[in-house]
Amino acid sequence: MAAEAVVTMDGWCVLHDTRTFDWASWKIVSEQERQEAVEEFKALLAKWDAVEEEKNGSQSLYKVVGNKADLMFIFLRPSMDELEEVKRELNKSKIGDFLIPGYSYVSIVEMTMHNPMEGGKDRELDPRVEARLKPILPKWEHACFYPMARRRWKDANWFEISKEERTQLLYEHGMTGRKYAGLVKEIISGSIGLDEWEWGVTLFAHDPLQFKKIVYEMRFDEVTAKYGEFGDFIIGNYLPKEDITTYFAL
Amino acid sequence: MAAEAVVTMDGWCVLHDTRTFDWASWKIVSEQERQEAVEEFKALLAKWDAVEEEKNGSQSLYKVVGNKADLMFIFLRPSMDELEEVKRELNKSKIGDFLIPGYSYVSIVEMTMHNPMEGGKDRELDPRVEARLKPILPKWEHACFYPMARRRWKDANWFEISKEERTQLLYEHGMTGRKYAGLVKEIISGSIGLDEWEWGVTLFAHDPLQFKKIVYEMRFDEVTAKYGEFGDFIIGNYLPKEDITTYFAL
Amino acid sequence: MAAEAVVTMDGWCVLHDTRTFDWASWKIVSEQERQEAVEEFKALLAKWDAVEEEKNGSQSLYKVVGNKADLMFIFLRPSMDELEEVKRELNKSKIGDFLIPGYSYVSIVEMTMHNPMEGGKDRELDPRVEARLKPILPKWEHACFYPMARRRWKDANWFEISKEERTQLLYEHGMTGRKYAGLVKEIISGSIGLDEWEWGVTLFAHDPLQFKKIVYEMRFDEVTAKYGEFGDFIIGNYLPKEDITTYFAL
Amino acid sequence: MAAEAVVTMDGWCVLHDTRTFDWASWKIVSEQERQEAVEEFKALLAKWDAVEEEKNGSQSLYKVVGNKADLMFIFLRPSMDELEEVKRELNKSKIGDFLIPGYSYVSIVEMTMHNPMEGGKDRELDPRVEARLKPILPKWEHACFYPMARRRWKDANWFEISKEERTQLLYEHGMTGRKYAGLVKEIISGSIGLDEWEWGVTLFAHDPLQFKKIVYEMRFDEVTAKYGEFGDFIIGNYLPKEDITTYFAL
Amino acid sequence: MAAEAVVTMDGWCVLHDTRTFDWASWKIVSEQERQEAVEEFKALLAKWDAVEEEKNGSQSLYKVVGNKADLMFIFLRPSMDELEEVKRELNKSKIGDFLIPGYSYVSIVEMTMHNPMEGGKDRELDPRVEARLKPILPKWEHACFYPMARRRWKDANWFEISKEERTQLLYEHGMTGRKYAGLVKEIISGSIGLDEWEWGVTLFAHDPLQFKKIVYEMRFDEVTAKYGEFGDFIIGNYLPKEDITTYFAL
Repeated sequence: MAAEAVVTMDGWCVLHDTRTFDWASWKIVSEQERQEAVEEFKALLAKWDAVEEEKNGSQSLYKVVGNKADLMFIFLRPSMDELEEVKRELNKSKIGDFLIPGYSYVSIVEMTMHNPMEGGKDRELDPRVEARLKPILPKWEHACFYPMARRRWKDANWFEISKEERTQLLYEHGMTGRKYAGLVKEIISGSIGLDEWEWGVTLFAHDPLQFKKIVYEMRFDEVTAKYGEFGDFIIGNYLPKEDITTYFAL
Repeated sequence: MAAEAVVTMDGWCVLHDTRTFDWASWKIVSEQERQEAVEEFKALLAKWDAVEEEKNGSQSLYKVVGNKADLMFIFLRPSMDELEEVKRELNKSKIGDFLIPGYSYVSIVEMTMHNPMEGGKDRELDPRVEARLKPILPKWEHACFYPMARRRWKDANWFEISKEERTQLLYEHGMTGRKYAGLVKEIISGSIGLDEWEWGVTLFAHDPLQFKKIVYEMRFDEVTAKYGEFGDFIIGNYLPKEDITTYFAL
Repeated sequence: MAAEAVVTMDGWCVLHDTRTFDWASWKIVSEQERQEAVEEFKALLAKWDAVEEEKNGSQSLYKVVGNKADLMFIFLRPSMDELEEVKRELNKSKIGDFLIPGYSYVSIVEMTMHNPMEGGKDRELDPRVEARLKPILPKWEHACFYPMARRRWKDANWFEISKEERTQLLYEHGMTGRKYAGLVKEIISGSIGLDEWEWGVTLFAHDPLQFKKIVYEMRFDEVTAKYGEFGDFIIGNYLPKEDITTYFAL
Repeated sequence: MAAEAVVTMDGWCVLHDTRTFDWASWKIVSEQERQEAVEEFKALLAKWDAVEEEKNGSQSLYKVVGNKADLMFIFLRPSMDELEEVKRELNKSKIGDFLIPGYSYVSIVEMTMHNPMEGGKDRELDPRVEARLKPILPKWEHACFYPMARRRWKDANWFEISKEERTQLLYEHGMTGRKYAGLVKEIISGSIGLDEWEWGVTLFAHDPLQFKKIVYEMRFDEVTAKYGEFGDFIIGNYLPKEDITTYFAL
Repeated sequence: MAAEAVVTMDGWCVLHDTRTFDWASWKIVSEQERQEAVEEFKALLAKWDAVEEEKNGSQSLYKVVGNKADLMFIFLRPSMDELEEVKRELNKSKIGDFLIPGYSYVSIVEMTMHNPMEGGKDRELDPRVEARLKPILPKWEHACFYPMARRRWKDANWFEISKEERTQLLYEHGMTGRKYAGLVKEIISGSIGLDEWEWGVTLFAHDPLQFKKIVYEMRFDEVTAKYGEFGDFIIGNYLPKEDITTYFAL
């Protein structure tokens, strides 16, 4: 007898899009070309900000620490069509020539009944639920992204244990998360059928040490210790649009 | 005593062919060269469409979400020779210079008696079977491709359990699939002996959320929870030929 | 007590050598340069064919389906020295500049007493054995190559079970293979100590569907279901020398 | 019941940043350009040394043995912001065009109560603790870096055993480490939530043989034999600033 | 209680350094440039040979079979500093521009008491031990390199079984090796703490079939069948300096 799947509520589509900046080529082109590319890029960011102001999507840009990438965009949009268009628009732009595509991740914002923070009915009507399914990204100083999956091992198969057990394990997990209220914000997005892992986790913090603290502490939660598998972690520092010129200046 | 293999019925050969578009080089060539390349590409698409109209094959083109690729072609042809020729024709074309080859997958459309949706005899004569073995790809808005295999673990070895058990597990799996009738179409192709995994799964939907929903729900089916192993997932948005010019326009 | 190794008989050295063709660069050079490169390549193929006619080696060239490669050469030679020379000769040739080296595999043709098709003594004197250890590659329409290994798991360790058990398992495996007599030809080469996996398998067929059928059916054989591990599969369509000009023509 | 997490004390942020030097391009530019690039690089190193003198960070540069990289920088800074700025400053510099980014690792210097070398209370006030959390890198002749994780296996799950057992295992491990006092210095940094593995280990020695000796001997410690998983190891020879000119000279 | 580590005797540092030769670029430069590059390379080889004659190191150069690389250098030197210098010297040389760095491996020649071929005391004084720790590479026709590790599995953990059991298993392993006396020479080097695997094995033979025979036969030894894990194998044909000109000639 198969275990029962938990119904999810689903929100905006998400694209995590990392780029390596081609500094060597950037130095070769003329100062004028660089200025034009930066101005056009700023206009693109302004256009996207207008989408965010209209609550038709959200995005943030981060300066990645280490050599995995130089920049990470996080885009949320109502449809996969818009996510593809945003990528293409970036690639067609002048600065796109220097933004070498790297690791990316496709998912959809997700809430499940497992989550102990929720309760009651008619949730779809609840504006707090709406706000979580279609979140405006917090412009906190740091972001962390990682994909994850649940084990399907012989004696530790997440998809074979009962719904009650899963709910209980996630409840305890949520209790650990609550300790970080105000320190860490989290967006969970589902990627089964969309990308390589089963879920994507995006964390935001004012102090990046909190990423280490929360993920470390959660590793001891049974749901993680026994069932969690993790992809690579990438962290970035928020790049506000007023710092764009400085970022690209030589 | 070895378990009994299930006889398959086999149809058209399939090539999933992903490409990254070299936008930086595309911008460098002249507008005239770009126009010629796009016109030649449209002519190629038209030629392939004629093949589809003659029911000698089928194909669709998708705009990939995320950085794994920019475009994904799915080609079905009666022979491997034609699949190789199609790839070579694309590479020799003008636009081929900008379509950097990426991940691809080779398989053959397959039906097995496991499938609970089928029954009766003389299936090869059945036009519905013919339509499934030589399918014209639905021009739905979204496609999802992933390769998969069945585990050969000590206590979960798909190739050691009885044919009856396999049939029962796949029957239950089919019941889950039936819930998505009208929402998701599926083409199963076998790739044992042809490519890295054992099967390829191509899904089509009007709403890409259905990819997440069906693959998530199916993960709880015993056949998947216990025996399924998955490669990477790639999703794309259908690119109709009337949008080709816009897609490549700068 | 260690299990007993089976003595092998060993024949020619084998190199599977895949190449991606750099069509974009090929289009840039002049028609004359392309013609010279093709003519020189044909002369090289003719020279190699003379080696085959002298029974001092064998080779075939395949058009690969999908993006893993464009061409696959299979070279057999009496020595590793000649295999390295053949590769270098190709790289030094004009067309070599466009044949970007990809995946390759090094092995030595091998026969073991496990094989139920063999019997009797003085096999090294047997001309049929000689023909199998130093095989002239059949110029059939399709080839399939994959590397494989035998598991060394706690409860499924090929190198710990008795020689008798291994022989029995391989006998049953051979019975499956016999069903494909006339449909599939097979060359087994050993690569322990030479390359990444333990054996290489090269299959030939007139119909590539037979690759899928034989490898699928064999997966249910106990020797495979329980002990087999597989690398990636690559398939190609035979490219006879009379089609070389067409292959490279723009 | 989940096992108890051990509280950590956390210090500076760390970036291990490896680079391959593009010698072929370096030879092409003029001697004057090379000199300017080297002088600018030396000024950058001097600027960073001033940071170290102010005890606001630390860094060292190593010549990597083998082809994984040519150079490895280790940067320690109070914030992730500064680590990203250092990377960007390097990339924007003239010599940055020749320093192709390779493998990198992001972590935060960490001390836990597990460590048997520590005892007592009010550790945060202890200047020895401060010195370990914000360490000035020893300018010893050789460095070794590797990332690691603790197993979460069914019968060997570090995150499920009791805090007491973990403390005992790490105490024994520390005893092995003590044998190398004066021969090997070690900096442990945590990377859960920050990078691919759970911890980074940086070793320093006058004689690189000691890296092999200590890591080999520690592999027999139960904590390693049973729970340790290792990423790749990279070793380098210290490059003092007075040797910079020679290093890059043709 | 942890198992006892075996004390090792350690000799020269080793670098296996593979390179892909950039034939396409080599053809573009002038014949004079090629000649100068080859002459300079020969002078470098002669300089290194003088080091070998002084018994201050050793090296050999191999033509690699297959596409993993074109050339493999094996360098032995008393220090890691010299190994890094040798690499850099090669990269700075004219021919270095065409020798694209590939896979490499760093280790230190190692002898342990496990080895049944050794006995007695005062071994460090023994000239035969000295010769094995600081070996002059035999200029045999073929070499094979592979890295390996010992399993740390639940029921097969090399680092948890007793020293006596390890010694016994390695004694039996040595008996297999003895059968190949005169056919295969072996250098074992330790890489724990230095590179990705735990040991590197370099074999030399007049006939490369012996690589396959010895590694195949040894796979049945309990120490390998149960505890051995292997990285990739690379084989090469010895390139004596008198063949250098021919090797690079177009």
